[in-house]
Amino acid sequence: MSHPIYAHHQDLLTSAVHAIDSRGYWSPYEENPRAFGDDSIEAGRQAFEAYRDAQFYLDQPGLIGRGGGEESPYGISLNVSYPKCGADALVAAAKSAMPSWIKAGPDTRAGVCAEILSRLHSRAHEMAFAIMHTTGQPFTMAYQAGAPHALDRGLEAVAMAWREMKHVPYRATWEKPQAGKPALRVEKDYLVAPRGVALVIGCSTFPTWNSYPGLFASLVTGNAVIVKPHPGAILPLAITVAVARQTLKDLGFEPDLVSLLVDTQAAPVTREVATKPDVRLIDYTGGPEFGQWLEENARQAKVFAEKAGVNCVVVESTDDYKGLLRNLAITLSLYSGQMCTTPQVLLVSREGVRTPDGTVSGEQFGRDLAMAIGKLLEDPARAAEVLGAIQSPATVARIDACREFGEVLRDSASLGHPQFPNARVHTPLLLKVPASAQDAYGEERFGPISFVVETAATTESLAVAERLMRERGAITFSVYASDPMIQQLAEDVALRAEVSVAFNFTGGVFVNQSAAFSDFHATGANPAANACITDGSFVADRFVVIQTRRPAP
Amino acid sequence: MSHPIYAHHQDLLTSAVHAIDSRGYWSPYEENPRAFGDDSIEAGRQAFEAYRDAQFYLDQPGLIGRGGGEESPYGISLNVSYPKCGADALVAAAKSAMPSWIKAGPDTRAGVCAEILSRLHSRAHEMAFAIMHTTGQPFTMAYQAGAPHALDRGLEAVAMAWREMKHVPYRATWEKPQAGKPALRVEKDYLVAPRGVALVIGCSTFPTWNSYPGLFASLVTGNAVIVKPHPGAILPLAITVAVARQTLKDLGFEPDLVSLLVDTQAAPVTREVATKPDVRLIDYTGGPEFGQWLEENARQAKVFAEKAGVNCVVVESTDDYKGLLRNLAITLSLYSGQMCTTPQVLLVSREGVRTPDGTVSGEQFGRDLAMAIGKLLEDPARAAEVLGAIQSPATVARIDACREFGEVLRDSASLGHPQFPNARVHTPLLLKVPASAQDAYGEERFGPISFVVETAATTESLAVAERLMRERGAITFSVYASDPMIQQLAEDVALRAEVSVAFNFTGGVFVNQSAAFSDFHATGANPAANACITDGSFVADRFVVIQTRRPAP
Repeated sequence: MSHPIYAHHQDLLTSAVHAIDSRGYWSPYEENPRAFGDDSIEAGRQAFEAYRDAQFYLDQPGLIGRGGGEESPYGISLNVSYPKCGADALVAAAKSAMPSWIKAGPDTRAGVCAEILSRLHSRAHEMAFAIMHTTGQPFTMAYQAGAPHALDRGLEAVAMAWREMKHVPYRATWEKPQAGKPALRVEKDYLVAPRGVALVIGCSTFPTWNSYPGLFASLVTGNAVIVKPHPGAILPLAITVAVARQTLKDLGFEPDLVSLLVDTQAAPVTREVATKPDVRLIDYTGGPEFGQWLEENARQAKVFAEKAGVNCVVVESTDDYKGLLRNLAITLSLYSGQMCTTPQVLLVSREGVRTPDGTVSGEQFGRDLAMAIGKLLEDPARAAEVLGAIQSPATVARIDACREFGEVLRDSASLGHPQFPNARVHTPLLLKVPASAQDAYGEERFGPISFVVETAATTESLAVAERLMRERGAITFSVYASDPMIQQLAEDVALRAEVSVAFNFTGGVFVNQSAAFSDFHATGANPAANACITDGSFVADRFVVIQTRRPAP
Repeated sequence: MSHPIYAHHQDLLTSAVHAIDSRGYWSPYEENPRAFGDDSIEAGRQAFEAYRDAQFYLDQPGLIGRGGGEESPYGISLNVSYPKCGADALVAAAKSAMPSWIKAGPDTRAGVCAEILSRLHSRAHEMAFAIMHTTGQPFTMAYQAGAPHALDRGLEAVAMAWREMKHVPYRATWEKPQAGKPALRVEKDYLVAPRGVALVIGCSTFPTWNSYPGLFASLVTGNAVIVKPHPGAILPLAITVAVARQTLKDLGFEPDLVSLLVDTQAAPVTREVATKPDVRLIDYTGGPEFGQWLEENARQAKVFAEKAGVNCVVVESTDDYKGLLRNLAITLSLYSGQMCTTPQVLLVSREGVRTPDGTVSGEQFGRDLAMAIGKLLEDPARAAEVLGAIQSPATVARIDACREFGEVLRDSASLGHPQFPNARVHTPLLLKVPASAQDAYGEERFGPISFVVETAATTESLAVAERLMRERGAITFSVYASDPMIQQLAEDVALRAEVSVAFNFTGGVFVNQSAAFSDFHATGANPAANACITDGSFVADRFVVIQTRRPAP
């Protein structure tokens, strides 16, 4: 018997599975922060304000102190303090919470997860401010990516895992005919069992969007989840954990199925907890060094890691040159290039870019793109809504360090913010380099730093892109080409580099956007990520089937 | 458009998916070697005889010589020579064969795989002799496990992967409404893409049964497969590869999608090929040392490894003591204990075994089991059909080395074979040890070697079993208990050790048997195996989805 919460969300789950199967546009969550009126935004702001200079409440075991220390990229003081709990206490609590969660079964677990998502949806505005002031995202993006789109990704993972678990029946009678003898009959029960304790390691830029798939995929498949936020973006995941725990409690389950593990940059705990024998699943988003460390050291666990890559754009020809420039300018500027999907390398051949009005030289293309970025950001209010703020001072330092790597097509400049005088706002740095300067452009330069790379021909552009994406990884690959033959070559490159490709985005869709229920985010097969959000493998690896066989009566 | 071979096998594939969903008994292949008359057995024998003292023909690239050197456990000379090909040449050929295979799509690939299985089915008797004379299995088992049951497992993998791939549509139009503006429209193509070259490392005891799941799961998902048989059991996989290559050729595909890599025990090549960057999937069945080596060193690949474990039996009580003894005697004797599912440790408490006729002491249980084995094997013809022959001389040496580990309840003896005077036939060794002798019984003793372990109470038996299975792994766990409370405790043990459990097998079903379409073989979550034959994870990890996005017209 499933819990009544399953019946309550059954239609939603069924619709979500249908969406995954058909992969058109679908979302059950509200994308417009203004849809519920200005009051809801104000209420969200006030809820966020209440956390400042205060103690965040979480009733978790193993309390050993309090910690925190996030700083707003918008320059306001946060001073939120969180309970710090011992990792061993959280692991022990997680383990003892699991048996009844396992027995609840896939339907009930999916219903509970859908309810957690629904309650998080009602806290979307509060979440938006929490995300804005930890990641530096502009408000609208913080709302959209941090709440509805993150919830979409969470529900997608729940639905995908639910479908996968439901492929296994609860019970079967195996009856094998025997010549001249009674049939052999065995009654078989099948139990979907979790791998163990799951650890979700959040990132500083998209703490909810990148964590919800792993969190909900692990939880719905029966695992208990410990959430370890990035020390710079704790609040969004603390709210998430608080909502999850309250929901579990309200529905009669152990709240310790989801807990928060807080550390600081000065005293990190991730390595220690990630290698505990009971931790059997790890979801990670962040820098490639630590991702690789996890893959090499947390051998007792399945590691789902999204690391980093060098996303490429190849520009050969277009039917809409202005649209191309506008689209690329936005793509490079959105949240100051702090998206794992932002292109870093734009390859253009010396033969230039063919357009309906003639060929634009590679030289000119660089200047035009710089101009397009300038035009996009000339209005400070719009610039603030596009760029947001730089999450980490290290990214600002990186902009400065990269300036000397090539000819500056458009320099990065510090910009005032209309609301927050101390906000860390910097416009994108656009450099021009020859194809030979791979030391400069050939590794990830996280932040608003891009390179126009001049090649001898489009075939060289494709070859450089392929090598980069194969060796360094990529989550996006964007190609502007009207010629079907070039498109075919680009598809072959995409197949060999195992990266998805987008052609001729000149309108209102941007290559850095990835839509739940429709887009597979990362393929999981090149160095940028070893997992895909969300394919079958992302969910199927989180549970096993334990069988009980008995002679049938 | 799919190839006509898909339409030809579509009903079979649909039935197989239905079987997986419902998990009752089902098989499309003939299980009775005598169903087609004695002529077919004789024809199979002749086909097998033709390989002896001959050169096995395979038209593969990179030929560098010939090799082989298998020896029949039945003592007849084989002297089959196989083409030896360079691993680099096979990998290169595999890579260039893949693009058209990818484009053929899931339906066509599933149809081709079903056709390969169908052609292998028509060679079942030949295969049975090839398996008998490399593994030492008795003829009927060689036929059943090596042909129909192995084909079942192959088809199960094909069907499971086909269902998983079909969850991804070929194409979708994503249309997102925009307030007051035309909708955003993107056309999306989804390509199921392989991980790369797959390597299947065969074992010496069940070369087809253990290899077909990985072979067909990798092939149907678009990967090219290199099959590396155990040097002691090449012929069954050479026949398999020859049939696969001919089928591919006949249907218009590259035969190099499946190739055979032969080595010898003196000059093994597996380590070298397993660590090549292009090898992205590895299926392995064999000893735990090499399995662990693969997991630690073949880091560029996903490794699906079935290693070894210490399968346990807990005997508490029974409604049918005679049935229990008979069932256990067969279980321990089948193919001389050379199954990865054979129990090694039988735990019985000093409180004895409760039966309808009173309590049998632990002491007496050991003697009764020894007697039951003796009775089963007293007729030499039946003994030969149950025991088969010992595959490797190392196993015979192991029997000798283990004799001193405890009190001998029934000694292993060399036995004559009615047909093959030089056959390596040995009856099972049954020892009695105290629970403290974990050095003796607590690691895998591959072959016909079992321990009756006396404990203080059934709760101790369960605790010892749990620790062993958690630390050493197990594929089977068998419990004899009428008491529902003991059954519940045993289910809890199974959940914690992540092993499947069988209760009260006293009739014609044996714990070492695992039925395709119904039983999950190994959970993949304890040290015995890191993968399950066949769950969703076993197939979903073998492909990725590569997307192409374009603005919709």
